[in-house]
Amino acid sequence: MITAKHLSAGCRRLLSTSSYTVRSHTCGELNASNKDEKVSVMGWLSHKRMDRFFVLRDAYGSVQATIPENSELKRLLKDLPYESIVRVDGVVVDRGENRNKAMKTGDIEIGVKKLTVLNKAVSNLPLLPGVNANERTRLKYRYIDLRSDKLQRSLRIRSEFVHNLRKFLVEKSGFVDVETPTLFRRTPGGATEFVVPAPSPNHGMAYSLPQSPQQFKQLLMVGAIDRYFQVFLNGETEKKTLIFQIARCYRDEGSKGDRQPEFTQVDVEMSFTTQEGVMQLIEDMVISAWPESLNHIKPKSPFPRISYSGAMAKYGIDKPDMRIPWEIEDVKSGIFNFLKKNDCENWRARVIVCRGTGKTSISNSIKNEWKRLIQMNENGRNFAICHPSQKSWFKSVENQKIVDEFVLTEDDVLIVCWGHSDGVYWTLGQLRNYVAEVCGLRSEGGVTAHWVVDFPLFSFEEGQLVSTHHPFTAPVEKDKEMLFESDNQKLLQITGQHYDLVMNGVEMGGGSVRIENSEIQRHVLKVLGEPTEEMEHLLNALSYGAPPHGGFALGLDRFVAMLASDGNPLTPVRDVIAFPKTKNGKDLMSDAPTTLSQKQLQRLVQRNFHAHFYLNFRYGITLRSDADS
Amino acid sequence: MITAKHLSAGCRRLLSTSSYTVRSHTCGELNASNKDEKVSVMGWLSHKRMDRFFVLRDAYGSVQATIPENSELKRLLKDLPYESIVRVDGVVVDRGENRNKAMKTGDIEIGVKKLTVLNKAVSNLPLLPGVNANERTRLKYRYIDLRSDKLQRSLRIRSEFVHNLRKFLVEKSGFVDVETPTLFRRTPGGATEFVVPAPSPNHGMAYSLPQSPQQFKQLLMVGAIDRYFQVFLNGETEKKTLIFQIARCYRDEGSKGDRQPEFTQVDVEMSFTTQEGVMQLIEDMVISAWPESLNHIKPKSPFPRISYSGAMAKYGIDKPDMRIPWEIEDVKSGIFNFLKKNDCENWRARVIVCRGTGKTSISNSIKNEWKRLIQMNENGRNFAICHPSQKSWFKSVENQKIVDEFVLTEDDVLIVCWGHSDGVYWTLGQLRNYVAEVCGLRSEGGVTAHWVVDFPLFSFEEGQLVSTHHPFTAPVEKDKEMLFESDNQKLLQITGQHYDLVMNGVEMGGGSVRIENSEIQRHVLKVLGEPTEEMEHLLNALSYGAPPHGGFALGLDRFVAMLASDGNPLTPVRDVIAFPKTKNGKDLMSDAPTTLSQKQLQRLVQRNFHAHFYLNFRYGITLRSDADS
Repeated sequence: MITAKHLSAGCRRLLSTSSYTVRSHTCGELNASNKDEKVSVMGWLSHKRMDRFFVLRDAYGSVQATIPENSELKRLLKDLPYESIVRVDGVVVDRGENRNKAMKTGDIEIGVKKLTVLNKAVSNLPLLPGVNANERTRLKYRYIDLRSDKLQRSLRIRSEFVHNLRKFLVEKSGFVDVETPTLFRRTPGGATEFVVPAPSPNHGMAYSLPQSPQQFKQLLMVGAIDRYFQVFLNGETEKKTLIFQIARCYRDEGSKGDRQPEFTQVDVEMSFTTQEGVMQLIEDMVISAWPESLNHIKPKSPFPRISYSGAMAKYGIDKPDMRIPWEIEDVKSGIFNFLKKNDCENWRARVIVCRGTGKTSISNSIKNEWKRLIQMNENGRNFAICHPSQKSWFKSVENQKIVDEFVLTEDDVLIVCWGHSDGVYWTLGQLRNYVAEVCGLRSEGGVTAHWVVDFPLFSFEEGQLVSTHHPFTAPVEKDKEMLFESDNQKLLQITGQHYDLVMNGVEMGGGSVRIENSEIQRHVLKVLGEPTEEMEHLLNALSYGAPPHGGFALGLDRFVAMLASDGNPLTPVRDVIAFPKTKNGKDLMSDAPTTLSQKQLQRLVQRNFHAHFYLNFRYGITLRSDADS
Repeated sequence: MITAKHLSAGCRRLLSTSSYTVRSHTCGELNASNKDEKVSVMGWLSHKRMDRFFVLRDAYGSVQATIPENSELKRLLKDLPYESIVRVDGVVVDRGENRNKAMKTGDIEIGVKKLTVLNKAVSNLPLLPGVNANERTRLKYRYIDLRSDKLQRSLRIRSEFVHNLRKFLVEKSGFVDVETPTLFRRTPGGATEFVVPAPSPNHGMAYSLPQSPQQFKQLLMVGAIDRYFQVFLNGETEKKTLIFQIARCYRDEGSKGDRQPEFTQVDVEMSFTTQEGVMQLIEDMVISAWPESLNHIKPKSPFPRISYSGAMAKYGIDKPDMRIPWEIEDVKSGIFNFLKKNDCENWRARVIVCRGTGKTSISNSIKNEWKRLIQMNENGRNFAICHPSQKSWFKSVENQKIVDEFVLTEDDVLIVCWGHSDGVYWTLGQLRNYVAEVCGLRSEGGVTAHWVVDFPLFSFEEGQLVSTHHPFTAPVEKDKEMLFESDNQKLLQITGQHYDLVMNGVEMGGGSVRIENSEIQRHVLKVLGEPTEEMEHLLNALSYGAPPHGGFALGLDRFVAMLASDGNPLTPVRDVIAFPKTKNGKDLMSDAPTTLSQKQLQRLVQRNFHAHFYLNFRYGITLRSDADS
């Protein structure tokens, strides 16, 4: 029965996608060269007409089949619901004059000899693949939505990209793919991890789902793995990353697609390397793994570099979208007379000129969105829009000075912002993105990639010194001594060996050279006020022979979302995840998470974290653990 | 500084393992052809002698370095603890007469020009790599143990094998690598899953960590992915599988290495296929991915097939070790006069002759182990050992009859067992394995592979009808109608489309053709007494256009353990897992799982499954959730 061509070991040709199956061909591959061939194809009934003509669809395409005029099979087809699974045995016929140019297999059709219904679908499907439906319906019936061209393509691009990454790392660069545990201990720090009650005999204890394999990466370097990588499914933390915050700023659907309770990273770590070494590796990896079909949006290599302070000064953001040509500019005094000068600490006035956007960027609804954005940062609320296309605006002599100074045309918009320095740059950075977004500048031009480097090792957040990257990042060599200063202002001047990869205005990943010295690591944790008791295993490891090492983590979901949407990194990641959850963490398809069954509850009580569990009205039972009696 | 040779995109050569690093060579690669070259190598200080000679070790090997006679560097070396990280800049020198033939790089040494201590180790390391130590110490300092040749090799074999698998599936066979969620809903049935309290707003709810991606595999087929695979990290269930039970039978260290709370499977699923198709695919995959360095233990293809009933009758076990030549035989009446006949239902007497094992297999300690084994099955307790090498045994005429009938020599041992059929076969199956084990038959001969097929769809366990494989397995075509019989005896006669891959007596994986028809699936769940409410999403999916499909799951940890130990499938899986847990689920290195922090507890209370949490003396706090107030 089976038509599989068997593979002899070591054989190098690509097997047909019909190998190991009972079909002779997929629906997408037949063409005029198959004329007169006997074929067996199988797929979903996706269209029918006049009870004689129908289209069969599978993962690889569609093909038309035709039942002979007087055949009994017409009745079978007539009653068959769409999306039923059908087997067609027949002969390939050239359609001649009737060929359908819009269809890849449109030169031919299958003359049906035998029609077999393999699995009938119900007649009232809640969703048809590729047909518009609301998001909740599509998520609930994800297995139907997956049949759509868009999701088929996304998942295949993801698989191809990840496979290319692995080939580069394993075959070209000698990396070892090592799996690390998902059941681990909690990590100190503010982030919230999922906890998993442990089985007996670990009474009252729990694992945590790791937010990243960071500790394992480093321990593998201490363990002489030398070159490690892993495609790792991480547990979410409740600490929002900046990617999400920014996304929420200028997209209406906001964070909808972006908060997944689990997400995938490509983690890479290497010993005896430098910042330069890791950045070059990652750059080569990304270029080498780029899917061939997406070469038209491939970024140019080498990726340009920009310092953190340079990015902030020019773009008001540490992940600038380089497709946008506008930069933040200084203001000569005497140009904007309406500014209230120096009414706060660190007062600044800066402008940005969005050239060629006048026509589209300042409708009233868009202005309201500008205002909403501005209000997200209380230090940046002083701003004005200078807009020459409004004739009235031109009348004042003051305004003519502005037009002359910045060489504005009627098609330009100038934004001036003043107040506390931080707020001014933040505001202009956000508006730069927003105006570019509404004017379509962020949906074309392929992918631009660059590195942001020279981040400060520490930042100040809510009155507290925190790591800009994470507490394991090493300072640059020349700043090492400064770590032992007791003055926070001095500490804030230390530069870290930390690098972010930014593409089209989104941070795709980041990495750092790590601290390999146990005493320095202990000191940094102390400076940050992090307890060291929970990290003794790592601190010990660093004192037992730890090579210098560094690494990187690439956000795979976001990266693939960008690839699959031809370069738009703001595409919701759920479009490249087979079974995504809503932003509330719900799987609408299976209705997870669920309340616990009585059996699960009982087991939890047996492991009950040294606590009594009094179960309420929902279960109507009272349980008590032995440990407490 | 960096010596990386940069990779231009598309370049196909294998990069040096020193690319992207600051070393010029690894410790393992230098040889006489490098004579007079200036080199920089880095690694762990693993040996020193006379304060002048030392050996540097990294992931790729070891190399000797020599400090000039009168150098100041001697003092530096003298005080340097073993396992410190050292950089050596120097020149490669031919050792001439003094070459060390036992060392791969023994033809040369490095004449040290510069010696830099990159990271000093403490002087009293709790463990040295490759040096004997007890298991707990090795697990606690896993990052040191990882430096040993054994673990380095294991993890690299694992990485190579998995990469080969992926290449076969993606490049040769057109499979799509799809990640499925680890946070899912509970699966009905007896197995115990880890639960994960869900974040707000899912008050009182929890996810479960899936035991396998079974449901996702099937839903992806409904979603037209057509050919899916994934290397999936599964959450353990508390239901022990037979692998573990058998392992406990004939290995002293028993299940120690075998119970991991998470384990990895290679999951494969395919549409429009048959049992034949999947088996051929998996066979080709295993053969194609077999690491080249292990060709000497590669099994012969095609893998022979044996039916479940044939395996039970010949070997007393459904996963026979085919390296053992002995088969269970019938007994002519009148040979063993000491048997009490027909004293139970289903009475049988069977023998097995372990030829050539008389000298080694029947010491007193081994006999005690025989007895212990026998007592594990109460139906199989009647057995006798016929042992011609004991001269006394020969004296009886009765015994001479046995010797003649079975052509026994003094070097043979015959075991006869009688009583209830199930117990007899079980006993002889276990003893066959055990005798072969103590005689060394199970530690040589490479890997034998075969398929076990024609399993019964249902089995009887503790008075209950259960699935032999799982409830989604389809019956063979000819038995489909029998599913609707109400007589359990009839149901037990149904054959399933289920196949196990057995290597050297261990089940390496199993699979089945699935039920694609919603109504049949619903009926089978009903027959098994499984509630269908929790499976409605899958049952619905099957009615919305589900192609016929089948798949397979390969136990990766066990498979790689067998590869890494040259064919011994009883090797503990912890030897091929970077960071394993003990059988109690403890990570000795990081001391996970841990008790919960107060913050974690508070958060749990906020999600508290509609229950009060009264925290005990450990925390001295009483919390109450809002939901209950």
